[in-house]
Amino acid sequence: MNCIPIMISGLPGNVARVMAEAVLQDERFTLVPFSLTGEEISDGQVAVDQTTVTLLKPSERERKINEILESYPGCICVDYTHPTAVNDNAKFYVAHKMPFVMGTTGGDRQDLERTVKNASMPAVIAPNMAKQIVGLQAMLEYGANTFPGLFNGFTLQVKESHQQGKADTSGTAKALVACFNQLGIDFDISSIEKIRDPKIQRENLGVEAQYIKGHAWHTYTIQAPDGSALFELTHNINGRQNYVSGTFDAVMFLKTKIDTNAFEQKLFTMIDVLTAGK
Amino acid sequence: MNCIPIMISGLPGNVARVMAEAVLQDERFTLVPFSLTGEEISDGQVAVDQTTVTLLKPSERERKINEILESYPGCICVDYTHPTAVNDNAKFYVAHKMPFVMGTTGGDRQDLERTVKNASMPAVIAPNMAKQIVGLQAMLEYGANTFPGLFNGFTLQVKESHQQGKADTSGTAKALVACFNQLGIDFDISSIEKIRDPKIQRENLGVEAQYIKGHAWHTYTIQAPDGSALFELTHNINGRQNYVSGTFDAVMFLKTKIDTNAFEQKLFTMIDVLTAGK
Repeated sequence: MNCIPIMISGLPGNVARVMAEAVLQDERFTLVPFSLTGEEISDGQVAVDQTTVTLLKPSERERKINEILESYPGCICVDYTHPTAVNDNAKFYVAHKMPFVMGTTGGDRQDLERTVKNASMPAVIAPNMAKQIVGLQAMLEYGANTFPGLFNGFTLQVKESHQQGKADTSGTAKALVACFNQLGIDFDISSIEKIRDPKIQRENLGVEAQYIKGHAWHTYTIQAPDGSALFELTHNINGRQNYVSGTFDAVMFLKTKIDTNAFEQKLFTMIDVLTAGK
Repeated sequence: MNCIPIMISGLPGNVARVMAEAVLQDERFTLVPFSLTGEEISDGQVAVDQTTVTLLKPSERERKINEILESYPGCICVDYTHPTAVNDNAKFYVAHKMPFVMGTTGGDRQDLERTVKNASMPAVIAPNMAKQIVGLQAMLEYGANTFPGLFNGFTLQVKESHQQGKADTSGTAKALVACFNQLGIDFDISSIEKIRDPKIQRENLGVEAQYIKGHAWHTYTIQAPDGSALFELTHNINGRQNYVSGTFDAVMFLKTKIDTNAFEQKLFTMIDVLTAGK
């Protein structure tokens, strides 16, 4: 198989770096040695393992992109940048007919969808790249739509633990709580217990030292008040490996769509990626 | 609302007794003071709280049933008897135009379905009356059908604990393992860990003393071999209260079907009962 050239936008950011390193180690891919970055980044280049990647600020990317695309035909973009860059970057990819996977959250999502729907190449937009989590969420949404009130009268407890830097409440936890609400459980997202203290994470939860700086642990406990039933769901993701694998699945999905010219639809989600294997 | 007369078949058995006691305490229902029982039962009557229930053996039930049905018009039957009685009892209910909920497992299920499909009154047949478990199973089946291979390469561990008397492996655990297989996990049902020792149940699992003789606890643990992800699902049912509630929902479902004459279809399952509230 010919290697698929991948450009990772968002270097020198952490997630973009993990993705770029993984591209270098994956036989299916070639790393395009350029990366869209923010205007405020002072470095012009960054080293990823043995590869030097040139950083392209908004003010200079238009001047260089055609040459890059000529050198790396069929290039697919993976965007892990910043919420403030989401809409601008998407417009840039679309203008240059680059298929892309948008892993960056935030920005104006409606504007993003409009941009992609009018594009000539397909894109996968995914606020969560952890495939199994996306699948789990779809199962719960199915349950909530099919059996509303199934857990009427039950109580819910939600705990989530993430690296100290994460200020907001887990988006996945909020999405699942919405399902549990529909299943009949009275619970407000303000009652989600957020754990950000590394000491508690290590000693009480048992998060391994290497994952203290990058983990997403969630536990939902549902109980019948009379003690007659307990349901508990846990999903613990450690590090970034799980997101890398989901992102690369999205890239392969786009590649297949392009090769078979099967993209009257332009906008895809991780659910499309998951069901493609069916 | 007029009380719905319910006849509980299976006294003096344990589950039938729990159901009969619950009927007496539920304002929606009247307990019909008769119960189909086995030919081998020597007692002619049994006391349930303050009520005396007459036991009807197969050899004598035909002689008495018309009088009972005249005294309790609209009577609905709930069957918690014995696998060997399932088919015969169903034919008896159908012959006398009694709608029924078959909670007894075993027997010839195909024959049972045929009997009901040819009946003039509807019936709910449910190998598991725990509504939330039935719903959970439906969600996992949906996931298995929609995202086959979602957990490719993951490992599974299954533990189930039931009262000492239960010899076979949990049917629910077997059904969920089939879903996990379809989701890509290689696991044989012979690897399900069965816990039947009350000491282990009390000390290691934390089953409360009052539930040692009646509980159904299940935990499924799914892990990525590289440690990057862990998913865990637990469903613990204590005592019989949960089954009572599901059984009564099935009775109310039948009552609505009969009142609205909406039963071209005769054979219903707990999934029908769950989705009826939609």
